[in-house]
Amino acid sequence: MISVGEARELVLALAPAPTAETVPLQHAAGRALLEPAIARLTQPPFDSAAMDGYALRSADVDVPLKIVGESAAGHPWHGEAAPGTAIRIFTGAPVPAGFDRVVMQEHVTRDGDVLTVMDAAGGPHIRARGGDFAEGDVVLRPGRRINAADIGLLAAMNVAHISVARRPDVAVLASGDELVRPGQTLREGQIVSSNDLAIAAQVAEAGGMPRILPIARDTEDSLRERFAEAAGADLIVTIGGASVGDHDLVGKVAFELGMQRSFYRIAMRPGKPLMAGRIGDSAMIGLPGNPVSAMVCAILFMQPLIRRMQGLDASEKLLRARLACDLPPEGNRQHYLRAVLEDGRDLPLIRPFGEQDSARLTLMSRADALLVRPADDPARKAEEIVQFVPLPR
Amino acid sequence: MISVGEARELVLALAPAPTAETVPLQHAAGRALLEPAIARLTQPPFDSAAMDGYALRSADVDVPLKIVGESAAGHPWHGEAAPGTAIRIFTGAPVPAGFDRVVMQEHVTRDGDVLTVMDAAGGPHIRARGGDFAEGDVVLRPGRRINAADIGLLAAMNVAHISVARRPDVAVLASGDELVRPGQTLREGQIVSSNDLAIAAQVAEAGGMPRILPIARDTEDSLRERFAEAAGADLIVTIGGASVGDHDLVGKVAFELGMQRSFYRIAMRPGKPLMAGRIGDSAMIGLPGNPVSAMVCAILFMQPLIRRMQGLDASEKLLRARLACDLPPEGNRQHYLRAVLEDGRDLPLIRPFGEQDSARLTLMSRADALLVRPADDPARKAEEIVQFVPLPR
Repeated sequence: MISVGEARELVLALAPAPTAETVPLQHAAGRALLEPAIARLTQPPFDSAAMDGYALRSADVDVPLKIVGESAAGHPWHGEAAPGTAIRIFTGAPVPAGFDRVVMQEHVTRDGDVLTVMDAAGGPHIRARGGDFAEGDVVLRPGRRINAADIGLLAAMNVAHISVARRPDVAVLASGDELVRPGQTLREGQIVSSNDLAIAAQVAEAGGMPRILPIARDTEDSLRERFAEAAGADLIVTIGGASVGDHDLVGKVAFELGMQRSFYRIAMRPGKPLMAGRIGDSAMIGLPGNPVSAMVCAILFMQPLIRRMQGLDASEKLLRARLACDLPPEGNRQHYLRAVLEDGRDLPLIRPFGEQDSARLTLMSRADALLVRPADDPARKAEEIVQFVPLPR
Repeated sequence: MISVGEARELVLALAPAPTAETVPLQHAAGRALLEPAIARLTQPPFDSAAMDGYALRSADVDVPLKIVGESAAGHPWHGEAAPGTAIRIFTGAPVPAGFDRVVMQEHVTRDGDVLTVMDAAGGPHIRARGGDFAEGDVVLRPGRRINAADIGLLAAMNVAHISVARRPDVAVLASGDELVRPGQTLREGQIVSSNDLAIAAQVAEAGGMPRILPIARDTEDSLRERFAEAAGADLIVTIGGASVGDHDLVGKVAFELGMQRSFYRIAMRPGKPLMAGRIGDSAMIGLPGNPVSAMVCAILFMQPLIRRMQGLDASEKLLRARLACDLPPEGNRQHYLRAVLEDGRDLPLIRPFGEQDSARLTLMSRADALLVRPADDPARKAEEIVQFVPLPR
């Protein structure tokens, strides 16, 4: 058995370099930026008014001024900024060269085309040309998942299409004679296949494109057929058939198909019988068949691998909480306990479920967090600070 | 001007009751559950083995046992659990009535078909029928955004289709003579339209279906045409044209089209000129034209409205951090400062940007959080605890 950290490194090493595709900006949200994003213009493109008011020369604030024009966004004023003059100006509109100040409309009086500044404090209320970014600047760097603010920024940079990582093609394969698709009447001994649907949703969450294969039966022929269908995938995720039981066919068939195995078992709970390696041109992860173990292993290993395949940060994000209760000492495997988070004095309080049966999907669905307990962790008291993996809500 | 809290209540009151649609489970991730999800079977459906080993009678642990069969997932054993016998059993397989215990395979020795229990401690390692849920149980309640764990749970409940809230149809309308679509060569005074793309991404983030309308020009005719195209939307979001400037056409045209306005201005920075109400059968929000103000108002008002329209929790989620620096006293409007979060001793440290110009999209893209400062908040010292709105990463 290897440690969780060692297993994580071996899994991440399976990621090929991301490949690029170009998408229009309106479809870029959630995608991984793959090349530096360079501004195609200067923003603001000109000195512009930061508020509605009047543009004038600072030297003129004490004398009545003649209003000689108006500058609005999209309708710049093209006159000359002569001494003793001012123009009406609106937020975002160009400030003509020569005028060096915008006075808020609340701070002036206007009588026909004569302007008097009442309050000259504050200002200059001009946004300098290039204050946000200049043409040619690298504004966003690769390795970033594009969010709504980035979309706005890229548009303002006059970038209409960007290069993002192709979403990894992930084949998801559940196997078991007992498994049937949901919505049917079950015969004795049959169980609804829930793992492949849940894991596919986790694939999509991490940015991959899940492809759910038909359920494999517990025969070598059936598994070989499925592996043939999965060929070409960036990642093949099998579920079940990887326990130490007599029914471990997935490992046998994968091995016969040329799988190079990185490891087979990890010192962790739940999820000991995890397998990872390479088969043909695909990375492969074999998740345990137990539903909760499968999901926990997917969070700890599969999702980081899918992120790494897109050039994204794949490091573990651990947060801190205070224990809501005492805990007994741990065994020799790192333990991930399903837990809920509650409001705390400073840090949140974390309360692991008393029942940690890894077959209970209701507990996984109710959990906010996986409390991490290192191998051989001693007994812990309530109020001690511990680490957790946040679960998506 | 009304307070942020009052404005929020008025905006949320614009939400009609969510309407239902049925989707297959594999397309349910991220959707809002609208009806109670009821288990269509009992899980586990039978008493089942919690690990690989041997099923036997507790009374028999001290005597050699005859192995009379095997129970595997999908291949139950149908014999009789007679005294003095045991069966080989695999995780998840049915435990025949009469056997009340599973002994781990590591704790026995086996010689042909004779089994000897070496270590009888622990156990019974049987998952009781219905331990996760029973047929007819309401397992998930409405008002929940469905995540990967829920998908697995629903599948295990034998639910193949579920009733979720229809995604709100949200028309997004930017207006301005100066606006052009990204990717073109700009003439003097022109600006790339970035707001509608960013707001559309925020609509999708909250679960809505954005529909970006062609840019409206600064004429009443152009705006009327766009409002006609938006008709039927659950929500119409206009951007710009809502300032106090002479160019406020959106408010005028919306009023003439019968808009019932809930409010017009809010005591907040950035984003004072926010407008909300109802026009025809649609809710309407008029966001300020300033890009950062538009995004901040969308986070505080538009996204909660879209969530409420799906029957989801729309309450404000404020987190706590310690100030990384001193701050001056605030004015009479609630202030949302763009800020970054850093690791802290207990809580994270929050550091607002020194420059808060609401035209700078680079700052919005770099921000992790909006630091909330109430109206008339006194000066604050570094290390004081403050509240923030987390921004999506």
